[in-house]
Parts: sequence; C-alpha cells; structure tokens
Amino acid sequence: RSREMAKLTQLIDNEVFQAYATYATIVLLKMMLMSLITAYFRMTRKAFANPEDTASFGKGESAKKYLRIDPDVERVRRGHLNDLENVVPFFGIGLLYALSGPDLYTALLHFRIFAGARITHTFAYLIPLPQPSRGLSWAVGYAVTISMAYKVLKTALYL
Amino acid sequence: RSREMAKLTQLIDNEVFQAYATYATIVLLKMMLMSLITAYFRMTRKAFANPEDTASFGKGESAKKYLRIDPDVERVRRGHLNDLENVVPFFGIGLLYALSGPDLYTALLHFRIFAGARITHTFAYLIPLPQPSRGLSWAVGYAVTISMAYKVLKTALYL
Amino acid sequence: RSREMAKLTQLIDNEVFQAYATYATIVLLKMMLMSLITAYFRMTRKAFANPEDTASFGKGESAKKYLRIDPDVERVRRGHLNDLENVVPFFGIGLLYALSGPDLYTALLHFRIFAGARITHTFAYLIPLPQPSRGLSWAVGYAVTISMAYKVLKTALYL
Repeated sequence: RSREMAKLTQLIDNEVFQAYATYATIVLLKMMLMSLITAYFRMTRKAFANPEDTASFGKGESAKKYLRIDPDVERVRRGHLNDLENVVPFFGIGLLYALSGPDLYTALLHFRIFAGARITHTFAYLIPLPQPSRGLSWAVGYAVTISMAYKVLKTALYL
Repeated sequence: RSREMAKLTQLIDNEVFQAYATYATIVLLKMMLMSLITAYFRMTRKAFANPEDTASFGKGESAKKYLRIDPDVERVRRGHLNDLENVVPFFGIGLLYALSGPDLYTALLHFRIFAGARITHTFAYLIPLPQPSRGLSWAVGYAVTISMAYKVLKTALYL
Repeated sequence: RSREMAKLTQLIDNEVFQAYATYATIVLLKMMLMSLITAYFRMTRKAFANPEDTASFGKGESAKKYLRIDPDVERVRRGHLNDLENVVPFFGIGLLYALSGPDLYTALLHFRIFAGARITHTFAYLIPLPQPSRGLSWAVGYAVTISMAYKVLKTALYL
C-alpha cells in the first residue's frame, strides 16, 4: 500500500497538478459561496421557494406571502447557474489539461486568468457593474477553457 | 501498454481512491435519479415544458393545457439543481482530496457523511420533511466539502 | 520533476484515458456551445434577464420591455440545463470508469455512443424534432452512464 500511496503522492507533488488543484478548489469554493449568498438574500428579503421554509413565519396566509420571487435572490441564482455552466467545463477540461503535460508557466497563466475572470464576473453580476463588465469577464473565462481544450485535443486526440 | 495499464490500476487499487470512486459514483447516481423522478411527476401530473412533449395528448388547445408548471415537478427540479450545486463541488474537491494522501479512516468518514447527508437531503426535499431537516442535511454536506477543500489547499497550495 | 512528469504523461499516454479525454472534452465543449446559442437568441429575440443588459437600448420603459421571457431563449436554456444534468455524471463516472481498466474497444463504444446521443439530443431539442427523438437520445446517454457506473462499482466498491 505504501508504494501505491507514493504513486498517488507523485500526482499531487507535480507542480502543474498542484496549481490545478489550488485554482480548481478556489473556483469551486467561490461557486459554493453563491449558496450562502442566496440563503442570505432569501432570509433578508423574506423570499422563499418552499412552503416548509416559511413555516416559522406562522400559518396560512401570513406565511404564504413569503413564497415569492425576489429580484435580488433571482440575480444571485442566475450568477450561481452561470458558475455551474462555466466552472464545470473548467474543472473537467482543466483536469485533462493538467494531465496533458503543459509547461508550468503556461498552465499557471491559464488557471490564474480563469480564476480572476470568474471572481470579477461574480462582482460584476452581484453589484451589478454596467455592461460589458460581466460579459467580458465571462468571455475571458470561456476563452481560457477553449484554449485548454485545444491543448487537450492536440495532445490526446483518440476518436 | 500493459505497464501503463498497471500504473492506472494502481490508482484504482488504492483504498482511498476506491472509497472515493464508490461514494462519488453513488452520489452521482443519486443525482441522476432526480431526472427519472422529474419525468415521473411530469407524466403523472401531466405538466410539461415543451409543446412537442404534449403532442400525444392531441392537437391545439387540448394539448396546450398540459404546458404548465406543477408544484410537485418544480419541487423535484429544485432538488435536482441543489444536487448539481453540491455534488459538483464534492466530486471535484473530493477527487483532489483523494489524491492529497488523506488517511483511509478520515477519508471514509468524509465520503460517508457526505453521501448520507445528500440522501437525507433528497428525502427531506421530496417528502417534504419540516425544516430544519433539509437545511441541516444541506449544511452537513457543505461542511464536509469545505473540510476536504481545506486539506487540499493545505497539501497542494501553489498560487 | 521530469520523473514525475513522466508518470503524468503515462496517464495521458494510455489509450483508454486518451479516448476518455477526447470525448469528455467534446461533450464539455458542446455544453459550452449552449451559452453562445443562448446569447445569440437573447440578442436576436431581444429578451434579457438583467436590467444592465438592456441599458444600450435606452433608459426607462423603452429598455424595460426587453426584460422578458422568450420561448426560444427558454428552450436553449432547458437544453443547457439538461446538458449539465447529464454531462456532469458522464464526466465524473466516465473518469472513474477510464481508471477502472476497461478494455479499449468497450470504453470507446461507451464514449462514442454517449457523445452521439448528446449531440442528437441537442438537435432534437433545438430544432425541435418530434418526440420520442429527444426522449430516446436522452435515455441512450443515461443508459451508457449507468453501464459505466456498474463497471466502476464492480471494480472499486469500497463502502
């Protein structure tokens, strides 16, 4: 077993893989933060999606009025879904990219720009900043993922 | 090739990685189950999202009335989206965690609690159980993922 | 470091893993394409979700009318969400499957059928084709993922 562990440790000891692990974890944690922000807005705006969530506000009509759609909650939820749509491809393609033997400098460049773009995107969505802030930050993250996909397919293409 | 295969097999022969593979597959299958439950409710409640899905009920107005939003269908869909929002970070961070060399006992503890929490969350959402059942099961899964992320960053941080 | 790199390269040099990397990248790119199609429909149908996205159409009521729900945009968004619900399990279970030592022919069969099914699903959703085109293509992708999950659990089960 200790020899197998050694092999595993070699993966996580690789600098490119460490950089991938770091930035993938950061953007996944950032995505998870959206759940907390949604919960915060649901509670401060008193806008819930499930009858059982409003039970503590009383019974009948007095609770029912909190089953409603709030624009601030919906904004965070759109930001969360946009994260899912973009962080999932980054995680998947990024993992394969990290295993495709890029040089450390290029890999770090990809990971850092993606993480920066997604953090900017979140601020642009939640504040919100005037367009094209959100559109541009989305496009930068998208382009980084496409660039990594190109490297994966160039290295590993097997149809 | 057989030597390469041997290397791969070493990954899947590692007990921590086997445990990860088992629990990751279980929670992904559980998430997939939500699609079947949605389909079941759409058909029994006759509530569809696409005109082409109601074509078998006849033409014109008689079919159009089945293009509607049903609270039971929406409840399953919210549970499904919540799975995506939480199972994706578990899968991603959990994979990196499994490669960061945790001891088997600690890793199993994380994986088992997460899987138990998400299965509880699904029952709490679909029955539905009174709060804070759903909130607590969500929080437990969330905390497990944060704990794994901490271990990944402690082991692999490379900014 | 070069010895570690060699280990990593062995993973990406494995033919099953190369096939996985190729098809996983293809279906993730296909999923990413849904973002561009959504943006295209939002712009041509002039149907936006955020006030800041309509600012270029003027101020006040003249811009507000573009904050609306359009059936074509919603169709693409449903297709995108369906991709997330199905491509995420394929990516996760497929990765573990690729590491579980399947033979190359069987693995390629799984990956090719899944990719074909999801591409068909997208056309069936967007054109749209009459049912059961979309339902069947969804079911084929689902069945492929279940089949891979079975192999993973048979190889790696560690509860």
